[in-house]
Amino acid sequence: MSSTSFEPRGDKQAVEEGLRFSPKFDTDGLIPAVALDATTKEPLMLAYMNAESLRLTLEKGEAVYWSRSRREIWHKGATSGHVQRVREIRTDCDQDAIVLYVEQIGAGACHTGRSGCFYRRIDGPDGSMSLTEDGRRFDPGAVYGKS
Amino acid sequence: MSSTSFEPRGDKQAVEEGLRFSPKFDTDGLIPAVALDATTKEPLMLAYMNAESLRLTLEKGEAVYWSRSRREIWHKGATSGHVQRVREIRTDCDQDAIVLYVEQIGAGACHTGRSGCFYRRIDGPDGSMSLTEDGRRFDPGAVYGKS
Repeated sequence: MSSTSFEPRGDKQAVEEGLRFSPKFDTDGLIPAVALDATTKEPLMLAYMNAESLRLTLEKGEAVYWSRSRREIWHKGATSGHVQRVREIRTDCDQDAIVLYVEQIGAGACHTGRSGCFYRRIDGPDGSMSLTEDGRRFDPGAVYGKS
Repeated sequence: MSSTSFEPRGDKQAVEEGLRFSPKFDTDGLIPAVALDATTKEPLMLAYMNAESLRLTLEKGEAVYWSRSRREIWHKGATSGHVQRVREIRTDCDQDAIVLYVEQIGAGACHTGRSGCFYRRIDGPDGSMSLTEDGRRFDPGAVYGKS
């Protein structure tokens, strides 16, 4: 679709030093996107975008992902109200990853009821984990209508 | 290899609320890993780990990735000296992504000579970009022996 096309990718120099966005999508047509809280800089979530959702994100100024499980465009917060207002969007040297600095509307980004998805630290090679201080901020059942 | 195995994944409740690390690798055997500066919280890079590199990261306390282009274990900084000392490692709700808080040794994480890879912001739907304040910190040619 022409509405979701981006610049064709040039050579290494153009990709790394140029100022035209030419994202590289993987073989599934996806690019990983990391949402960081624009204020606290805490990592909120890592999700994926296809060309259409990336274009919609740029147009709406709100994060729009591609749901790999539901195989559909996923306008984050469309049902819960917990939208992510995009304050800044960046790409990396080879333009195959996205960072979003967002204002998370509502109590949190994670479907488990927490502000972000990265609420557990791995303590060592034995695979034990512990919770960070990021406890539940909202009741997922009340927000999403399921427990 | 038994040395790189992790916990088998349990049900949704165990994956999301449990305190045993059971990472989900994609069909290529990889999991995305986002390195954040432990001090500034700036995003440094997004790369991938396979089970062996993830295990090595946990054992060494330094970031070890899987190079998709070279198809080999990539101990970041092994040649440049710019290793990433892992201060904390987290996983997300469905355990299919990793966040590393690292102390970046040397001037920067990015092979272009910058502190991190996300040095360009996308200004709008037209795909124009601008540089962030993150200019070159080192000469890639001097560090990596090529321009």
